[in-house]
Amino acid sequence: MARRDSSPSSAGRRRREGKGTTGAKRLPQLSWQTVRNPYPPFEIASADEIEAVHEASLEVLQEIGINFLLGEARDILKAAGADVDPDGTRVRFDRAMVEELIAKAPSQFTIHARNLDRSRVFGGNHINFFPVAGNPNISDIEGGRRSGNLADYRDLLRLAQVINAVHGCTPMLEPIDVEPNIRYLDIVGEQLLITDKIAFGYSLGRRKILDALEMVRIARGIDEATLLAEPSMWTVVNANSPLQLDIPMLIGMIEMARRQQPVVVTPFTLAGAMAPVSIAGALTQQNAEALAGISFIQIVGPGCPVVYGGFTSNVDMRSGAPAFGTPEYVKAVLVGGQLARRYRLPYRSSNVNASNWPDAQATYEGVMSLWATVLSHTNMIMHSFGWLEGGLRGSFEKIVIDLETVQTMMKAFEPVDFSRDELGLDAMREVGPGGHYFGAQHTLARYETAFYQPILSDWRNWETWQQDGALDATQRAHRIYKELLAEYEAPPMDPAIREELTAFIARRKREGGATADD
Amino acid sequence: MARRDSSPSSAGRRRREGKGTTGAKRLPQLSWQTVRNPYPPFEIASADEIEAVHEASLEVLQEIGINFLLGEARDILKAAGADVDPDGTRVRFDRAMVEELIAKAPSQFTIHARNLDRSRVFGGNHINFFPVAGNPNISDIEGGRRSGNLADYRDLLRLAQVINAVHGCTPMLEPIDVEPNIRYLDIVGEQLLITDKIAFGYSLGRRKILDALEMVRIARGIDEATLLAEPSMWTVVNANSPLQLDIPMLIGMIEMARRQQPVVVTPFTLAGAMAPVSIAGALTQQNAEALAGISFIQIVGPGCPVVYGGFTSNVDMRSGAPAFGTPEYVKAVLVGGQLARRYRLPYRSSNVNASNWPDAQATYEGVMSLWATVLSHTNMIMHSFGWLEGGLRGSFEKIVIDLETVQTMMKAFEPVDFSRDELGLDAMREVGPGGHYFGAQHTLARYETAFYQPILSDWRNWETWQQDGALDATQRAHRIYKELLAEYEAPPMDPAIREELTAFIARRKREGGATADD
Repeated sequence: MARRDSSPSSAGRRRREGKGTTGAKRLPQLSWQTVRNPYPPFEIASADEIEAVHEASLEVLQEIGINFLLGEARDILKAAGADVDPDGTRVRFDRAMVEELIAKAPSQFTIHARNLDRSRVFGGNHINFFPVAGNPNISDIEGGRRSGNLADYRDLLRLAQVINAVHGCTPMLEPIDVEPNIRYLDIVGEQLLITDKIAFGYSLGRRKILDALEMVRIARGIDEATLLAEPSMWTVVNANSPLQLDIPMLIGMIEMARRQQPVVVTPFTLAGAMAPVSIAGALTQQNAEALAGISFIQIVGPGCPVVYGGFTSNVDMRSGAPAFGTPEYVKAVLVGGQLARRYRLPYRSSNVNASNWPDAQATYEGVMSLWATVLSHTNMIMHSFGWLEGGLRGSFEKIVIDLETVQTMMKAFEPVDFSRDELGLDAMREVGPGGHYFGAQHTLARYETAFYQPILSDWRNWETWQQDGALDATQRAHRIYKELLAEYEAPPMDPAIREELTAFIARRKREGGATADD
Repeated sequence: MARRDSSPSSAGRRRREGKGTTGAKRLPQLSWQTVRNPYPPFEIASADEIEAVHEASLEVLQEIGINFLLGEARDILKAAGADVDPDGTRVRFDRAMVEELIAKAPSQFTIHARNLDRSRVFGGNHINFFPVAGNPNISDIEGGRRSGNLADYRDLLRLAQVINAVHGCTPMLEPIDVEPNIRYLDIVGEQLLITDKIAFGYSLGRRKILDALEMVRIARGIDEATLLAEPSMWTVVNANSPLQLDIPMLIGMIEMARRQQPVVVTPFTLAGAMAPVSIAGALTQQNAEALAGISFIQIVGPGCPVVYGGFTSNVDMRSGAPAFGTPEYVKAVLVGGQLARRYRLPYRSSNVNASNWPDAQATYEGVMSLWATVLSHTNMIMHSFGWLEGGLRGSFEKIVIDLETVQTMMKAFEPVDFSRDELGLDAMREVGPGGHYFGAQHTLARYETAFYQPILSDWRNWETWQQDGALDATQRAHRIYKELLAEYEAPPMDPAIREELTAFIARRKREGGATADD
């Protein structure tokens, strides 16, 4: 599924050649590239079953309705023709209204990065891998588990820049050592200073989202009109499931929609806790919440890019703890893709696990998730690198484990070449029964690029591996993330832009930043 | 994809109730069941591309040919009309001959176990998970890595009996502490004594395969005629790739085919070493070798059950070491399934990895393989439990890791129920916006069976997990395999049959067993 971009940046060229500017040997990585799943999506629900979920969701929106906790949002919905409870927060939607609004959203769009070579397309069979987001804790196996902090956040962003398979930024860690009112300035500012990939801003109140958009505008060196015409920053809105949207998120949605900036609407529907215990029920609620959020955005900003988000999983019914990478999660991701395609919307799901350690459990839960995301034609795969502990923690080692599995999927979904030469008849004639192919012409012409070269897998024999310290994959991942960090080079930025951006951040910090109510 | 058998054994019923005969609590497991992939196979090659591989394979068989090292086999082939080199071992096949012979093999068949509730169907969308096979070494994280031995072989078979997702026996370890000439008697005999699941015999010479069949006949308590009518033991034949079949394997094939016992024909085509470096080339060679072996079997025993085996992977081109669970492996497994279906034959592939430790690498390489096997409609998934180190070693902990991933796949491929009640509208009406579903009627009616219950995954929070010793998944797998071993109960066997079987084994050992030349 990999297609090399036709105009790679010179930094990209250097990386592919395995050398940095200093001439030091770099770790093997796939190049920065467009990624697609060229095969039809894997579908486990029939068309009738998808229609049943659709119909049931419309029933939920029409009969039960959704709580919109912000008065301004209810006023907008009332003016647009929704049935708004005069004495409360409940909003009910007519089915025709929902279908008309959803149809306004684009089926594909581009998010622009400050380095335009880093812009990405969302929709169709495009795949974009995003790193861990929003976790309050971080760990590595030497330093242990610790609260989110700015130093680790910066290191995570450096890794996001170094790793070619990371296709955009997220708030990779919550730096809780920074005061809450100015934290959003660092969360967005550091993305723009440390990386040249597309930026994320939290949808948590008016002032915060407007400041974030201003930082992105400065970093891109564009004017307001260009920002409106070119989606340049994205956000995620989680419903407060069940069936509720809160005030700061709704304010953020309004401001993003007014400026045609992409919003990923992701209900967090844990079956058995915040959603019905049945997978079909949790998906129905997910669908109702997603349609409500997307409809609202299309009222405020018709044609605003949105992504249909799915995050349906289950809880451990003995403890109430959330579970991820389970059979139920796999099924929900696959059906979620079918629902998103029902509405011709780009789709977001995630590579997740509930493990307390970057071990075999974190790995199998993650790879189970990953297959579901790629098979379902997920366009935006969140938490693709470094999630742990059900979202309570990021892990440096898990980033490297995930890098190997993500790259494996990228290569596994590249079509096999069945052209005449590749069928190998000449090689078989040359080698014949009982021979070997190591020195064959056919081999020599291809061996350097024939196979994926891993970054983490160790295929040496037992004796060699033992002599070299018998490091397991998690221990090797620790070494590798440090080597990747050492490869970091700041991407170029116009000095005038850098000065304007840092001055803006400094001024807003002096002014006290913003609260969710601002 | 799980369907409970209509007539579960009483032992099966006890297990499902979570109790042994002693009343002790058992670990949670899915029941013994028929497993299917109810969705269409995932196909990455076009029909034209599959035809290109088919045509190229026939070209190989017609122009290059295959070395059959056994004179008796060449005589059989010559009598059947093949073009046999009078001065050598090369045999060339006319394309019409190959197509006619392949068509004689059944597309589906049953292998009968000594306990008929354990018999399994091969073909269509049936899936059967078989454990690790043939490895010369074994390890657990306490005892370390050691050579194959009878005590560990017995423990592995006990696990195969206890684990419901293990659908049949293999030679799970090479017990090299037993003398070579009598080892095959223990390899087969212990399967029949320790388990009641279907048995495997090595295809390594006439006397060995005939003794193995006799042991199976005794264990099943049937006569020769019934044995001929009911496939009761299976074997694997690996080509000596490239394009060569050796003497002991050919003798075994002849005897199995004469008695209509199933043979899995699996070329071992490592791209870049024993096969062309291109995946299309390695698959062409795999296909030619498989067709040659299957054609030969159909000459000897028309209609004999066979399985099309695929084991195409790649080597590390820097070291020559075999690699597994790679992108190339995933693609080869998926295309292999398409080739097997081209010939309407059951398909075998494997859950494999090249890791030196039951760690994250072993896990992601394994889960990558596992997805490919299930998506490709593999009917016989070899090495599903416990493979390590590219086949040089089995691992007790990996058996438990694999049990979790295999069970996850079984549940993930069970269709979602989209019936009206499952869509959860009543639950959403009851709970409403902002509520939670823990106490809802809809939840209470379903919570005990709504979700897959894991055997290895630990979803407790960080603090609880820390207090309980902070064991990673590999360490927990160690504990769990010992608990599973403690659950072992010998399956019932008629005392007269047991006596006859043990007497046969004892007599053949006294007589000195057999060599590959016998």
